[in-house]
Amino acid sequence: MLKELKEIVLEANLELKRKNLIIYTWGNVSGISHKDNLVVIKPSGVAYEELTVDSMVVVDLKGNIVEGDLKPSSDTPTHLYLYNNFKEIGGVVHTHSPMATSWAQSGRDIPCYGTTHADYFYQEIPCTRIMTGNEVEKDYEKNTGKVIVERFKNKDYNYTPGVLVAGHGPFTWGTDADDAVHNSVVLEEVARMALNTVVLNADNNGVPKYLMNKHFYRKHGENAYYGQ
Amino acid sequence: MLKELKEIVLEANLELKRKNLIIYTWGNVSGISHKDNLVVIKPSGVAYEELTVDSMVVVDLKGNIVEGDLKPSSDTPTHLYLYNNFKEIGGVVHTHSPMATSWAQSGRDIPCYGTTHADYFYQEIPCTRIMTGNEVEKDYEKNTGKVIVERFKNKDYNYTPGVLVAGHGPFTWGTDADDAVHNSVVLEEVARMALNTVVLNADNNGVPKYLMNKHFYRKHGENAYYGQ
Amino acid sequence: MLKELKEIVLEANLELKRKNLIIYTWGNVSGISHKDNLVVIKPSGVAYEELTVDSMVVVDLKGNIVEGDLKPSSDTPTHLYLYNNFKEIGGVVHTHSPMATSWAQSGRDIPCYGTTHADYFYQEIPCTRIMTGNEVEKDYEKNTGKVIVERFKNKDYNYTPGVLVAGHGPFTWGTDADDAVHNSVVLEEVARMALNTVVLNADNNGVPKYLMNKHFYRKHGENAYYGQ
Amino acid sequence: MLKELKEIVLEANLELKRKNLIIYTWGNVSGISHKDNLVVIKPSGVAYEELTVDSMVVVDLKGNIVEGDLKPSSDTPTHLYLYNNFKEIGGVVHTHSPMATSWAQSGRDIPCYGTTHADYFYQEIPCTRIMTGNEVEKDYEKNTGKVIVERFKNKDYNYTPGVLVAGHGPFTWGTDADDAVHNSVVLEEVARMALNTVVLNADNNGVPKYLMNKHFYRKHGENAYYGQ
Repeated sequence: MLKELKEIVLEANLELKRKNLIIYTWGNVSGISHKDNLVVIKPSGVAYEELTVDSMVVVDLKGNIVEGDLKPSSDTPTHLYLYNNFKEIGGVVHTHSPMATSWAQSGRDIPCYGTTHADYFYQEIPCTRIMTGNEVEKDYEKNTGKVIVERFKNKDYNYTPGVLVAGHGPFTWGTDADDAVHNSVVLEEVARMALNTVVLNADNNGVPKYLMNKHFYRKHGENAYYGQ
Repeated sequence: MLKELKEIVLEANLELKRKNLIIYTWGNVSGISHKDNLVVIKPSGVAYEELTVDSMVVVDLKGNIVEGDLKPSSDTPTHLYLYNNFKEIGGVVHTHSPMATSWAQSGRDIPCYGTTHADYFYQEIPCTRIMTGNEVEKDYEKNTGKVIVERFKNKDYNYTPGVLVAGHGPFTWGTDADDAVHNSVVLEEVARMALNTVVLNADNNGVPKYLMNKHFYRKHGENAYYGQ
Repeated sequence: MLKELKEIVLEANLELKRKNLIIYTWGNVSGISHKDNLVVIKPSGVAYEELTVDSMVVVDLKGNIVEGDLKPSSDTPTHLYLYNNFKEIGGVVHTHSPMATSWAQSGRDIPCYGTTHADYFYQEIPCTRIMTGNEVEKDYEKNTGKVIVERFKNKDYNYTPGVLVAGHGPFTWGTDADDAVHNSVVLEEVARMALNTVVLNADNNGVPKYLMNKHFYRKHGENAYYGQ
Repeated sequence: MLKELKEIVLEANLELKRKNLIIYTWGNVSGISHKDNLVVIKPSGVAYEELTVDSMVVVDLKGNIVEGDLKPSSDTPTHLYLYNNFKEIGGVVHTHSPMATSWAQSGRDIPCYGTTHADYFYQEIPCTRIMTGNEVEKDYEKNTGKVIVERFKNKDYNYTPGVLVAGHGPFTWGTDADDAVHNSVVLEEVARMALNTVVLNADNNGVPKYLMNKHFYRKHGENAYYGQ
């Protein structure tokens, strides 16, 4: 079942590796079929070189395994929480890519320091609060999704397709699994440049709002004029 | 038309990718035919792997499309503003290369910290002012060119073939598209070393003027003695 | 003798090179046969391209050469000291990988700043004290092992499979030579992210203990649920 | 003439490129024939891909071209000054490798922060003083050699086979051109780790002298016991 989606999700996982965001089995990508309310996700702890279309796992939105011989990624409950709350997204990515993870470990939002950021992420890329002991001890992965969604209470997840989980690392999402990987690649690059910017100018408060808006809306929404 | 120039501009765009200054479709290179007063530029938002000679777009100096089925780069008005004001240049490059963009995001000029810089760029590599709301909201890309040219009011663009647009990223130029790419590669390396120099010695004011002059004129002007 | 172990140790040495933790002949990997009380280790100062199964050296736990035409790595006494004291380990790796070595040179433990760290190393990755003049002048390599073991007096070497030797560089270990290499790769990545975290948030004291425990025990011990 | 030395010097120049210490035509390697009092050096401003044995230039110790159709590297007088004063060296390398150049730009010696450094360079890797206006304006390249030699007045060039020229970049030397390239590669790695060490521990004064001595003499002099 869902053969095409499995191929897309497999390819998106491999792309993560090609883009050097992943070492060993770190990281995972999923994609959703909105029509079927089913999610295809990478199996847990399997080497990227050994991933095949058939090793992809199909789960429903409650986390029941619908198809697949392998256990799904241990982060599956986080992915599902995001699909259940960010209704329009089509794919989710989790990595421990070094620069984005460094920001997550520092517990800081990434301010919008420039137009590279603004081209993809509206305003700051937020960092969640640190999870409580209770949240960690029981249903940890599901609660990881909860603190992400909580952080977006006053933010539009379609405009800012990524987050830093404090003390952990980044999650990104997108219109499909491919787009979510694209956003992970960009987040890593934005995080790299933002760290350098902090080193060069610690008091920098980011670009003016009108410049941020200009770049974001140049690529998004009905007045976009970037691309073909 | 302009087949040879299209080949040069195509190759210069691909070189940008090979030199790792570009991810996805970020960045663009153009070249001018001074004889024809026409500019060849990369199309907007097309993957580098899909670029061909025929996908290059020809525009006149007012921005009218003279040949090409695709939309030219959205940064075309910036390129044209530079060609219209820096009369002797033959090529323009824009990237979001990480180190140069970090300096642009910090809003700081890159001081001449050493002879690598002085071999290519005379004195500081300047950073523009932040653009005003009006400049951003209307004719943004053209006004990006305007603040660059304004920043060179008391500088010779032939001696300092690059600039940082504050909160955005670098533009470089050169005698042709190839040379402009060469300058982008050097700028990225100079920016990397300058950031490290700030970390090691924050109070560094750069090399003495006589050392800067020596290196610059060793490679430029009538008394140059570098190369064959 | 020990042909299979030699192949594993050879392959682990080559993997160190492939993972870019090594330049020239820096670094060495060994593996132990608990059944035979014999250790297989890389020869000293031989280029990685020239390593073969037959060039691997077999030594007993006192350092006597049992088989091999070449001198064993000059760090052999450190490896042996670790095998003699950390009875359950199966492999040892020493590198001068740049990020871990930078922490070793700074004389600082790497605090547990995030879950990447906690997935592999319980609590801080410790840095030894600086060795005394006497320890350095006589039996230096053996004493390097001694200060490592001393540093683990109140730590479980099975839970924290790596250490920084002050002013020198990292050693890691694992269930076998392969696993020890895996831990060296992870240590380098953790060290990279920890340095960035210091830059972004110098006052960071690391993640809460319950989060550290959660991640460590998600992958280790009887309640582990990561992987297949 | 000197065909064998030309091959060695050519190969050493190409190795510099393979080790990623060089972009474009930056950097140069030379080697000396002590028997003939002749030096083979890279031609000036020729792309590495186009270098051949026959393009190598032969000069005597006063700088006269003895063989070759191309101009020798513009840094030739610096190489010759070193050969004329550091009588035992067999090869010289100059690069603008980014980490070593960053230290040179900061005007700081690289302290001996660890054993990687001590394995190759005894005590600090020194940085010259900034050259005077007179030294720069007349015989600049020769005077670059002069300030290097001056800096080694109380240092043994055989024990510390490299230097940082303030505001410029590194020179290294060795028993032959190959060995000098090896030292350039190590210097770049040592410079990288030293910068990170400064970030982590700005007050670090380096390793104790006895540890530095131990590592240096483990690999050098009559009591060396590293390698085969």
